[in-house]
Amino acid sequence: METFSLTINKLIEELKKIPTIGRKSAQRICFYLLKKDPKVALDLAAAIVEAREKTILCSICYNLTGQDPCEICASKQRDTTKICVVEEPFNIISIERTGLYKGLYHVLHGNLSPIKGVGPEELKISGLQKRLGGYSVSEIILATSPTTEGNATAHYLTEILKKYKIRITRIALGLPIGADIDYVDSVTIARAMEGRTEIL
Amino acid sequence: METFSLTINKLIEELKKIPTIGRKSAQRICFYLLKKDPKVALDLAAAIVEAREKTILCSICYNLTGQDPCEICASKQRDTTKICVVEEPFNIISIERTGLYKGLYHVLHGNLSPIKGVGPEELKISGLQKRLGGYSVSEIILATSPTTEGNATAHYLTEILKKYKIRITRIALGLPIGADIDYVDSVTIARAMEGRTEIL
Repeated sequence: METFSLTINKLIEELKKIPTIGRKSAQRICFYLLKKDPKVALDLAAAIVEAREKTILCSICYNLTGQDPCEICASKQRDTTKICVVEEPFNIISIERTGLYKGLYHVLHGNLSPIKGVGPEELKISGLQKRLGGYSVSEIILATSPTTEGNATAHYLTEILKKYKIRITRIALGLPIGADIDYVDSVTIARAMEGRTEIL
Repeated sequence: METFSLTINKLIEELKKIPTIGRKSAQRICFYLLKKDPKVALDLAAAIVEAREKTILCSICYNLTGQDPCEICASKQRDTTKICVVEEPFNIISIERTGLYKGLYHVLHGNLSPIKGVGPEELKISGLQKRLGGYSVSEIILATSPTTEGNATAHYLTEILKKYKIRITRIALGLPIGADIDYVDSVTIARAMEGRTEIL
């Protein structure tokens, strides 16, 4: 016998499809949406539909956006000589929050992964090459994650971008701020030692 | 400057309103919904709207349901002499999953909490009393959480249900199955000792 009605089970199933949301979380979110003021749930549903309808990929950097080109590509305040290459659109939020970087971005929409069947054609790499042909980019910052796949992607990009004769950099790998060195893994410590900088 | 369009930020804000979903999770869910097949997002939105429209509270036990009385209250297979009192509708799922309990439920929709301003009037207690007046209930199982608020609620219910002269029980408190006694807090161990059962 079903404990709940079909519509409730349907909602739980739909919520469970979202990565990181398991059965328990889906149940809790479902009941939260059903117990609160109907406005909360209906506003969420409307926001999902609206975001789906109005969001496109920027034709230059492949960021998710409501306008093409996106606000960063269209801005006159950005340093157009730098392009920071990231895996996913939400990586841009993290970098923008630092307030330090004023250049442009390029979103790959993934990393190379032979296991998952993601090759160079699945990523927005040809779009990046097109941007280098066009205007005066002097530096490409590879900001893919320091994982096997992220490093492989950075390595692949370095190889194919060599011919453009521009500066190619990788974001620094090292100890995270506030870390206790006793609790940091040895690969990170090794990278932090390798990448040590002069202070005197 | 906004990193993303207004519609994307709107969706992130709506997702953040859900308890246990923080900024990072909201961003990841948002981009998941925007990157996947549109059907995934639109099905979720439709499921939310449908669940909101078709879900009501059972007029007997206050469970969330698509029909009144709910499937458990309407079932002829349930033992109508037992009522298990729970805090929230999703607690019913956990108890039903054991497959052991065949009685009815009563959902309080919360616990007593002077700090949060939740008094007896805010809970579905008068509905429970009405059920005891009607038919032959012989046992009330108090299955509120073993927290300060859950215990206070169980204590309060015991006091006001005394006059019905029926058996009132509390779900057992003790060591969870598979627990290593070294890692169990001392209050739980104390309760497990108090509640020890004869084996020979």
